Amino acid sequence: MKRLLPRVFVSGTGVTAFGELWRESVESMAARAAREAMEEAKITHKEVDLLIVGNMLVQQLEQRAQVGSIVAQAIAFAGPTLHIEGACASGGLAVRQGVMAIRSGMARRVLIVGVEKMSDVGSDDIARALMAAGDEEEQWAGATFPALYAMMMREYMAEYDIHEADVAAVAVQSHKHACLNPLAQFRREISVAEVLSSELVADPIRQLMCAPFSDGAAALVLEAGRAGVEIVGSGQGGDVLGLSGRNSLFSMKATQTACEAAFKESGLRVLDIDVAEVHDCFSIAQLMAVRDLGLVDRTVINTSGGLKACGHPVGATGVKQVVEVARQLLGVCVGRQVHNARVGLTQNVGGTGATAVVHILRRLHAD
Amino acid sequence: MKRLLPRVFVSGTGVTAFGELWRESVESMAARAAREAMEEAKITHKEVDLLIVGNMLVQQLEQRAQVGSIVAQAIAFAGPTLHIEGACASGGLAVRQGVMAIRSGMARRVLIVGVEKMSDVGSDDIARALMAAGDEEEQWAGATFPALYAMMMREYMAEYDIHEADVAAVAVQSHKHACLNPLAQFRREISVAEVLSSELVADPIRQLMCAPFSDGAAALVLEAGRAGVEIVGSGQGGDVLGLSGRNSLFSMKATQTACEAAFKESGLRVLDIDVAEVHDCFSIAQLMAVRDLGLVDRTVINTSGGLKACGHPVGATGVKQVVEVARQLLGVCVGRQVHNARVGLTQNVGGTGATAVVHILRRLHAD
Repeated sequence: MKRLLPRVFVSGTGVTAFGELWRESVESMAARAAREAMEEAKITHKEVDLLIVGNMLVQQLEQRAQVGSIVAQAIAFAGPTLHIEGACASGGLAVRQGVMAIRSGMARRVLIVGVEKMSDVGSDDIARALMAAGDEEEQWAGATFPALYAMMMREYMAEYDIHEADVAAVAVQSHKHACLNPLAQFRREISVAEVLSSELVADPIRQLMCAPFSDGAAALVLEAGRAGVEIVGSGQGGDVLGLSGRNSLFSMKATQTACEAAFKESGLRVLDIDVAEVHDCFSIAQLMAVRDLGLVDRTVINTSGGLKACGHPVGATGVKQVVEVARQLLGVCVGRQVHNARVGLTQNVGGTGATAVVHILRRLHAD
Repeated sequence: MKRLLPRVFVSGTGVTAFGELWRESVESMAARAAREAMEEAKITHKEVDLLIVGNMLVQQLEQRAQVGSIVAQAIAFAGPTLHIEGACASGGLAVRQGVMAIRSGMARRVLIVGVEKMSDVGSDDIARALMAAGDEEEQWAGATFPALYAMMMREYMAEYDIHEADVAAVAVQSHKHACLNPLAQFRREISVAEVLSSELVADPIRQLMCAPFSDGAAALVLEAGRAGVEIVGSGQGGDVLGLSGRNSLFSMKATQTACEAAFKESGLRVLDIDVAEVHDCFSIAQLMAVRDLGLVDRTVINTSGGLKACGHPVGATGVKQVVEVARQLLGVCVGRQVHNARVGLTQNVGGTGATAVVHILRRLHAD
């Protein structure tokens, strides 16, 4: 029966620059990314059956709702819209809902837009708004996401006997990749020594191990079809909100569950993965993701620069990951193209891992 | 091919009392409704593949996010969650995503929870929070939803040559039904004279033509299956946010589109509809809905009391509508049961009609 379900293809991709974009609004960024994706898919908004918006913060920071319609208005779309919120996994969840919409036969062409505008408020306000996605007890205790990930980093370092320099090396690699991505927020190389001497945010996490606050948008057109880049696996996992309820602090059950489901659907193995975009809100999270996903050495990770160096407009991130992998599979990532990439994976996390979404993409007719 | 998609059945329903529930929180109400629905479906949370939460205001009023996980925590669910926001259509959209999830084969058993807690803040704050779902120009002009629906009421009365008393009669009927629903917020009869002498909110809309602010939750278990109450049609429509961009103020394109799609899927006709729950955020909206849906005289409308008298906890409303119709089809609405109801319809609207969702339900083996 599964064979008869419509297959889902990426027919268009769009992404704005990520960074502190003072002149941009939710609408302007969403519209730019959406138009780029529709142009690539050779469609207009009139051919879109459903617009799905991934966004975390518009309601909290701007006190605006019916967020799907806000983005729709920006591209003069007057059809059905849907707003998905799952903290930093909002974008990945939006992609997954797009896959569901097409496989269910309830839409043939879906426009996904992930967007976030974070630079209009101060960083204390942003930190507070983000922590809204945390467990209430953690909030009452005054914990922030860096503090929570610091606990996870300690546990991970102890479990696998690695050191701060090993985590720093991940950030160094992210910046190296970002230098090759013209749309990345931080396009400069950094050294391990620089990371280790950067300000301590929440011991042992240092500033240069943290993803920044960013503005940005990314978009995808998904279609039932038969050629190009196919989404061959989609998985979602969950876990309790608070770390105190978890079985492990050095791994994420939600990622493992999502990963297993996505691979099962795809019929592929982890050895097949050429490129992956994983959720490095902190560099330690990348190490955890690689282990939870079982990625092997030859997989090239976060060619975009990742959340750390490409930037992390939270609602946009999960969509941007799929945009980057799709473009790698299409062979159009000039300057950072992974040679002959045919299969890719994305992993997007909400909070400290209460939500995780994994997608597996494959370029068809690659063999 | 459509025949091979899994069919979607309602295997459990739950709903709390609606009203000013001072001792209740989002979590307590969501958990109560969810547990009732799971009990009816004879499952535990461990057998749920996906939890979908319809909610508009938690992020705006309580500054809490990852709303799916908040509700999950309340029922000790640690699997995948999803939070849908579409203003007052959040609940209906959540139901629709559940239908998609099952038809896509990506979930076999979905728990839908619609919830809203409105009584913890003052009514000015609630009015402002709700207006977040409006068009920005309308907000800048100082318009509120009663003001916008007042314009629609004027246009409707002029177009169809009816009078304020005709609109008041709708509210009277809603209260009459609510008297028969032990969970309704307003269980007292009112008269046309009372409605017409109630306070003028936004001329010609009077207080007793408006749905109240309410607390409450509703839940559904949807399953792939073959018996019981089936969701045979699901449709969604959209329109521009602002009234200034609409073709008509006395009808809603979004409702018409959603209705057409739902009927097409169902293979049924409007003559088949025995019971309907329609979105009467203001009584004029019920008249518009009946006309846009083409409902005929014999259809019994808003047996729950509707938004007007049962109450309108915005995220819960769209889910409660499906609960009420499913229960009517099961024949368990003691005291307000419509004799031999076999086919029912729900219509849920976001804002002034930028979003509308229509579902058609049928009791199987009814013939």
